[in-house]
Amino acid sequence: MAKRSLSLSRVYRLLEPGPVVLVTTARKGQANIMTLSWHTMMDFEPPIVGCVISNRNYSFDIVKTTKECAINIPTVELAEQVVGCGNTSGRKVDKFTRFGLTPSPASRIGAPLIDECYANLECKVIDARMVTKYNFFILEVLKAWIDPAQKQPRTIHHRGKGAFMVAGETINLPSKMK
Amino acid sequence: MAKRSLSLSRVYRLLEPGPVVLVTTARKGQANIMTLSWHTMMDFEPPIVGCVISNRNYSFDIVKTTKECAINIPTVELAEQVVGCGNTSGRKVDKFTRFGLTPSPASRIGAPLIDECYANLECKVIDARMVTKYNFFILEVLKAWIDPAQKQPRTIHHRGKGAFMVAGETINLPSKMK
Repeated sequence: MAKRSLSLSRVYRLLEPGPVVLVTTARKGQANIMTLSWHTMMDFEPPIVGCVISNRNYSFDIVKTTKECAINIPTVELAEQVVGCGNTSGRKVDKFTRFGLTPSPASRIGAPLIDECYANLECKVIDARMVTKYNFFILEVLKAWIDPAQKQPRTIHHRGKGAFMVAGETINLPSKMK
Repeated sequence: MAKRSLSLSRVYRLLEPGPVVLVTTARKGQANIMTLSWHTMMDFEPPIVGCVISNRNYSFDIVKTTKECAINIPTVELAEQVVGCGNTSGRKVDKFTRFGLTPSPASRIGAPLIDECYANLECKVIDARMVTKYNFFILEVLKAWIDPAQKQPRTIHHRGKGAFMVAGETINLPSKMK
């Protein structure tokens, strides 16, 4: 998928609506993917993102050790792969191969990006103080990529137990908010 | 709006999809409302929620001092009030009066609930260690309320600059995720 660089000042617009994301990591040449919904923006620019990665997940140790990951944002066309990545563990499965996803090299980190996702955020861990108690990692987005063809991405939003809300119409209101 | 108590184990289903919420507070008999999108679930049960309340907001000092607030979840029918609450400050405006919203008493905290919102979460601050650096409050949900008539709430999700995605259809996939 041909992507262009996205201004870091616009990253919040991708994560603020609350999409399910796919977090990619790599260690010793082995890449992994995990499905994640527990994230929030924490600052605009540079974009700071907080996310919970459970210590039961294979990705937990990798993020803690390598101090980097990518946040990849899928649309509804990838819903089956998103659930597949959530149902399996990187301990046993090479998820790129299993789910037919294409790793593409990042520019600033060692973890690969998922080519099929419409946006990709290259991140480094900047604060791990809340990891022991809450599994909460604070990330800075170093570089962002987006598919310029996606004007109204149909992201998916987890309602629990495999129910996903699909992004509907967009309305515009006279907001002074950023 | 007639609401029933919601099991705390189900609270994550309300916040995980990333809706814009209205945070209510009270101090010395004066209630306030702020619009907020930067929140994430951090644990299932008891439900732990992290959220960013900027120190530029009137609500910041109130939450820091009273150590409690309510998270009220609006649907698209309240979109104008949501934007109105975001465009004004509690320093100057009584937002309940200005926007025709009805305060209703909470059971566990002093801050009022917004009757017109389809769900309300009564919260206390349990960890303020990340407040100074990130304006990040960690809350425990003590009590949750929901309108049982709302099966597919049309929540709104901020895309930036007054653009809001309205929740669309829900799809179900064979997920093992909670």
